[in-house]
Amino acid sequence: MESINMTKKQDKIGALPVTVLGSTGSVGRQTMDVAQLHGLRVEGIAGARNIALLEEQIRRFSPVYCGVEDPEAAKLLRVAVADTQTKVLSGREGILWLAENGDARVVLNSIIGTAGLAPTLAAIRAKKNVALANKETLVTAGEFVMREAREQGVSVLPVDSEHCAIFQCLNGEPHDRITRLILTCSGGAFHGKTRDQLSAMRKDDALAHPTWKMGAKITVDCASLMNKGLELIEAVRLFDVAPDKVDIVIHKESIIHSMVEFCDRSVMAQMALPDMRLCIQYALTYPDRMPSHLEPLDLRKIGTLTFSAPDEETFTLLPLARRSVMEGGIKTAVLNGANEAAVSLFLQDKITFTDIFDLVEEVVDETANMKAPTLSDIEEADKEARNAVVRKASRRGV
Amino acid sequence: MESINMTKKQDKIGALPVTVLGSTGSVGRQTMDVAQLHGLRVEGIAGARNIALLEEQIRRFSPVYCGVEDPEAAKLLRVAVADTQTKVLSGREGILWLAENGDARVVLNSIIGTAGLAPTLAAIRAKKNVALANKETLVTAGEFVMREAREQGVSVLPVDSEHCAIFQCLNGEPHDRITRLILTCSGGAFHGKTRDQLSAMRKDDALAHPTWKMGAKITVDCASLMNKGLELIEAVRLFDVAPDKVDIVIHKESIIHSMVEFCDRSVMAQMALPDMRLCIQYALTYPDRMPSHLEPLDLRKIGTLTFSAPDEETFTLLPLARRSVMEGGIKTAVLNGANEAAVSLFLQDKITFTDIFDLVEEVVDETANMKAPTLSDIEEADKEARNAVVRKASRRGV
Repeated sequence: MESINMTKKQDKIGALPVTVLGSTGSVGRQTMDVAQLHGLRVEGIAGARNIALLEEQIRRFSPVYCGVEDPEAAKLLRVAVADTQTKVLSGREGILWLAENGDARVVLNSIIGTAGLAPTLAAIRAKKNVALANKETLVTAGEFVMREAREQGVSVLPVDSEHCAIFQCLNGEPHDRITRLILTCSGGAFHGKTRDQLSAMRKDDALAHPTWKMGAKITVDCASLMNKGLELIEAVRLFDVAPDKVDIVIHKESIIHSMVEFCDRSVMAQMALPDMRLCIQYALTYPDRMPSHLEPLDLRKIGTLTFSAPDEETFTLLPLARRSVMEGGIKTAVLNGANEAAVSLFLQDKITFTDIFDLVEEVVDETANMKAPTLSDIEEADKEARNAVVRKASRRGV
Repeated sequence: MESINMTKKQDKIGALPVTVLGSTGSVGRQTMDVAQLHGLRVEGIAGARNIALLEEQIRRFSPVYCGVEDPEAAKLLRVAVADTQTKVLSGREGILWLAENGDARVVLNSIIGTAGLAPTLAAIRAKKNVALANKETLVTAGEFVMREAREQGVSVLPVDSEHCAIFQCLNGEPHDRITRLILTCSGGAFHGKTRDQLSAMRKDDALAHPTWKMGAKITVDCASLMNKGLELIEAVRLFDVAPDKVDIVIHKESIIHSMVEFCDRSVMAQMALPDMRLCIQYALTYPDRMPSHLEPLDLRKIGTLTFSAPDEETFTLLPLARRSVMEGGIKTAVLNGANEAAVSLFLQDKITFTDIFDLVEEVVDETANMKAPTLSDIEEADKEARNAVVRKASRRGV
């Protein structure tokens, strides 16, 4: 134990290539850092249109493929990297091709929004493990994704810190011994605020997240607790547990990333200083662990960890999420689509913070559910939910 | 997950018999409760001389064998239970025979003090797994015990809540990925006191432990932090880690029972409401888990968990324990023997609380170490350390 000799396994892991979809986003960039730290071979990368960063990543990692969603941007990048060996693929088809082909052992998917679904399914059908940083995939079509993964015999490895924590706590324990998943929640920027106070909150208030540095959309979701609602749905799908067996605990220090209770009332918890790269690394190196550049956790310095119940009467999106996944069908897709649309309006300063709550709740409640929807039913429901939010908002004078 | 169907595995576990050495002590009695709760078959029990309780246990569990250390007590018990099928064995030889023979899959050993060593070795040599609630076995002769267990291919299952927690955190993780064990410590009855305040403390003060209900000797060890020192040594032996990789954290709520840090800086923790029966049960049902009668842990109600560094300048037995296990040889046996003798004098109100610190430290420091001691060297060192404490104390006018 004195000296950690990881060379042999590191070589083994380094030799197993990775494809990173969404490599120019927040999680994508951190994934590239992890790949560099451990000398992982990057088989492919893909982004929407940030070709300056894609070019830099191509020159740093020499991937075999680079997908660019925007066809015009793809053309420009192809010219810019003509001196490299990297093949530039264009459009959504290019990204899908990249998800299914090549030697990648694991496809890390951090494409934002419902656009992430198709590449996830494509990778799974090509029998690749998927490290999933795309929440929407599991929220809108989790049943499809997990069924497909079971049928293909591949793993869906969570990249979210909460689900990564649960995944670590479950390590080797039989599923029927789980009695409860306990998701921790930093509380977001508006913890402790009343409904009245919330209605006065603006974009800049919401974007001041106390612990994690993330994109704008997810930071707003943290402030509304919708992020925790989406994670609850994700946990139900990933770990195949009943929605009423997933508890939410406010833990503002973000040191315990989540917990699992077993039938003997033993609770396993995973802790670390907050850093997404740990989850990314675990997903890429699983079932092994490798040294990270994180500082050691020193609880003696941290001193105190606090826990409280979320205020579900004020933050109504959390119970709405639980209700949606209990109802199943298209409801979680409606919830997610409506929320994406509402948050987008909020980020454009077109609606207030509590309008998000009201619009999403109205749309979810007013949409008739379907039993056993197909994937296209789900896509349709998602689109219709977004339109419904925009219609409702414009009727309010937006 | 909705309904936990444990019938099948429960039957399987219930059919695997258990022998409980020290069944009349605190851990032993709780073991019998666990056995009753889960319908475990009790193959054998053993106690020193509490024949009233042994008779009650014989009538409740119908074990095949019952060992009684005191030969006179054994005779009386034999008469008292003549109407049962249980065979009464007499003396230390009887208990040794019981440790080695019969159908028990696991021998739970909660015999107090160094008397527990011989039955532990006997059970291991008979290729039985040992659930070990006897700290002294690992502290005085841990290298022998663990080597023997490796050679016989059996498991030493920790019953201490801290080591049980570490055992659960290690579940399936490779040894060379461990970077640190973090033992939590309630702080004992005297947490926060100065050396001057400690010297005024008496038996009754020491016996008021804030969290766990235990025997007198271990409660005094908790107050002096020697218990944590002994656990540090135990952890080094059980999990084969370097002494400087075992950290101690004061955590007065006793909710996190211990933690393991891995090379990626991920820290796994095991939590539960404090109840020894959980550890006993885990050791008996391992690698499976079974429902327990514990209340669920509700961190939202508990609210706050606190952590701080132990005061090793005041509680000098803790660094002494680390130093002893680093030096190895006979030092841990000397430490443990000297401590047992000193605590015994303290419980007889013959010495003050800080005399325990001074006497143990002097004896450990004054004893010349031996490289590669035999078992009889260790027994000799243990005896000599006890005598040295008594001699020193009497010179002080005890």
